Amino acid sequence: MHGARLGRVRAAMDEQGVDALLLSVGADLPWLCGYEAMPLERLTMLVVPRDGEASLVVPRLEAPRVVERAGVFTLVPWDETDDPVELVAALVGPVGVAAIGDRTWARFLVELLARLDRTSFRRASEVVGPLRAVKDEAEVAALRRAGAAADRVATQLRSGDIPLVGRTEAAISADLGRRLVDEGHHRVNFAIVAAGANAASPHHEPGERVVRAGEVVLCDFGGTLPPDDTGAGYCSDITRCVYTGEPPAAFRDLYAVLEDAQAQAVAAATVGTPCEDVDAVARRIITEGGYGDHFIHRTGHGIGIEEHEDPYVVAGNCTALVAGHAFSVEPGIYVPGEWGARLEDIVVAADAGPDPLNRVDHGLAVVEA
Amino acid sequence: MHGARLGRVRAAMDEQGVDALLLSVGADLPWLCGYEAMPLERLTMLVVPRDGEASLVVPRLEAPRVVERAGVFTLVPWDETDDPVELVAALVGPVGVAAIGDRTWARFLVELLARLDRTSFRRASEVVGPLRAVKDEAEVAALRRAGAAADRVATQLRSGDIPLVGRTEAAISADLGRRLVDEGHHRVNFAIVAAGANAASPHHEPGERVVRAGEVVLCDFGGTLPPDDTGAGYCSDITRCVYTGEPPAAFRDLYAVLEDAQAQAVAAATVGTPCEDVDAVARRIITEGGYGDHFIHRTGHGIGIEEHEDPYVVAGNCTALVAGHAFSVEPGIYVPGEWGARLEDIVVAADAGPDPLNRVDHGLAVVEA
Repeated sequence: MHGARLGRVRAAMDEQGVDALLLSVGADLPWLCGYEAMPLERLTMLVVPRDGEASLVVPRLEAPRVVERAGVFTLVPWDETDDPVELVAALVGPVGVAAIGDRTWARFLVELLARLDRTSFRRASEVVGPLRAVKDEAEVAALRRAGAAADRVATQLRSGDIPLVGRTEAAISADLGRRLVDEGHHRVNFAIVAAGANAASPHHEPGERVVRAGEVVLCDFGGTLPPDDTGAGYCSDITRCVYTGEPPAAFRDLYAVLEDAQAQAVAAATVGTPCEDVDAVARRIITEGGYGDHFIHRTGHGIGIEEHEDPYVVAGNCTALVAGHAFSVEPGIYVPGEWGARLEDIVVAADAGPDPLNRVDHGLAVVEA
Repeated sequence: MHGARLGRVRAAMDEQGVDALLLSVGADLPWLCGYEAMPLERLTMLVVPRDGEASLVVPRLEAPRVVERAGVFTLVPWDETDDPVELVAALVGPVGVAAIGDRTWARFLVELLARLDRTSFRRASEVVGPLRAVKDEAEVAALRRAGAAADRVATQLRSGDIPLVGRTEAAISADLGRRLVDEGHHRVNFAIVAAGANAASPHHEPGERVVRAGEVVLCDFGGTLPPDDTGAGYCSDITRCVYTGEPPAAFRDLYAVLEDAQAQAVAAATVGTPCEDVDAVARRIITEGGYGDHFIHRTGHGIGIEEHEDPYVVAGNCTALVAGHAFSVEPGIYVPGEWGARLEDIVVAADAGPDPLNRVDHGLAVVEA
């Protein structure tokens, strides 16, 4: 598995003229070699030369964590008073082009620049992103399990099993997080709970605001499953809105437009369709519905080991969908000072048509106030 | 508060010849302006020119999250199809030296390098690290609250209130995490639980291994308090070991050496002492005790908004402690295949002598098997 991925990475490096690939924190590393770097100041870095053996530079105190995978890399542990950047620079050598992991801490790139002053750096996602974006059968199955787990929590939310009125956004967020874990997630990546006018802030931070009767509660939550036998865990991400009591007609109208836009964008996500066209479908319907100025973000993002990854469903991305692309479809309408709504499923592009991994009812749920 | 910090940052920039400071994800940004960037692919970046106004470049959909602080920065929101790196490059202009936040994603530095090809980049921690490392009274009080909260969980652990035998490391880890939150933390940063031979791996990932009678259980856990009125939350970090049943004499011996090393290193952490001397004290005692080869990491790290920050208690760091430096003192002894132990407190250097923020008993706790 990892050997085959390494082969595809080397082929992409060849094609793009990349001499060395440098991966640290983030999802490229577990995808490629089954090990996730700790996000700390001690450098972990996989060095993949275009030819020759790959090396995993790792703090000696973390070496016991690494499961060595024969034929994938050699372990190069460093001691507390060693200079790991010097080690990496020596492994890279004086090459022309290096691609460095997108989430690598900038401090390490700053230090590498001082030692590899003739090397030009690119983003590793140019090499690895298009490969990671296309999921194989096992990966789609893992995303489906993650989606089903998130669906179970969304069902609890919609049915009124999760108390809302009288609780703070922060308390509901913590509750959603616990339920994600209870349903099989390894970690919670986020649990946005935004009540009333807060729902007009797409990335609202849940706070001490208490949910009242007669308002929308927007919930956007997701997590990561436990690592499977490839060493990587896959993500869920879902958004549903609940109204505490009977919604006013104006909100019903807004939500109907949103639900239509989301459904039609999902239906448009067929193999061969450019990502930006899927975005355009949602945007057209919301604009025709009269809310165009209030849909202030892209329609979606890819998902896999990482919560956001290629392909992005956004104007300007003309990448055509292929079977195995997995991404969110999540239009939203945000009216500042008043309210907001978003509706999100994860969808996999497949030859038989778009395959939504979230199956929970898409209608506006009304719970007793 | 933020205005004063900005003044000290500008003075440091002047002194070091830094023309622009660029801060993104990580702790520098909340420390300097009370806002924490979301760790996502949409760029958030504070641009601080040496003279002139600072600007916070932020995705428009996240702009409603930002609490504007008068006199600190101007908000520059960008739309989904804008190029935020271009915006930042224009704000920076053609300067000689820019310092970029250590945890900024490398992808953004790669893109900035292409646009600012005459700028030399440094680590922002060279500018901000020494300032953040010295805590003021309010910060020490926040760290003390965090320490007390972690102490309460450690007390539950030592007293046997937290069941160990028959549970997996992962379940105990989740339990410790819940208790950290119950005791007032906003988020859990880590909860290492390592049983038996796993305790020889300093950064062991808690897994499906079931704790048995007659072994050591090493627990190293910490989290972050809720953001205070400065917009930042402070961290806890503590390690205690528990034995499930009567420990063998060989482990008692190892632990006695460790306890002595930790206590003497804490006592040595007086104002004016170089960090490396504190490390040397712990190392000397462990070496004299016969375990020198098994103490494979530095003695400690600074702590504040970030779980690891300046100053590092490690050979080669000749920074002299000043009043307000906050850091861990956490020697460990690791015998591969057999067992391991670590003992950790957070300590603040003060004129009246070292001030440990963790007060839980340091002896080896023995719980019923």
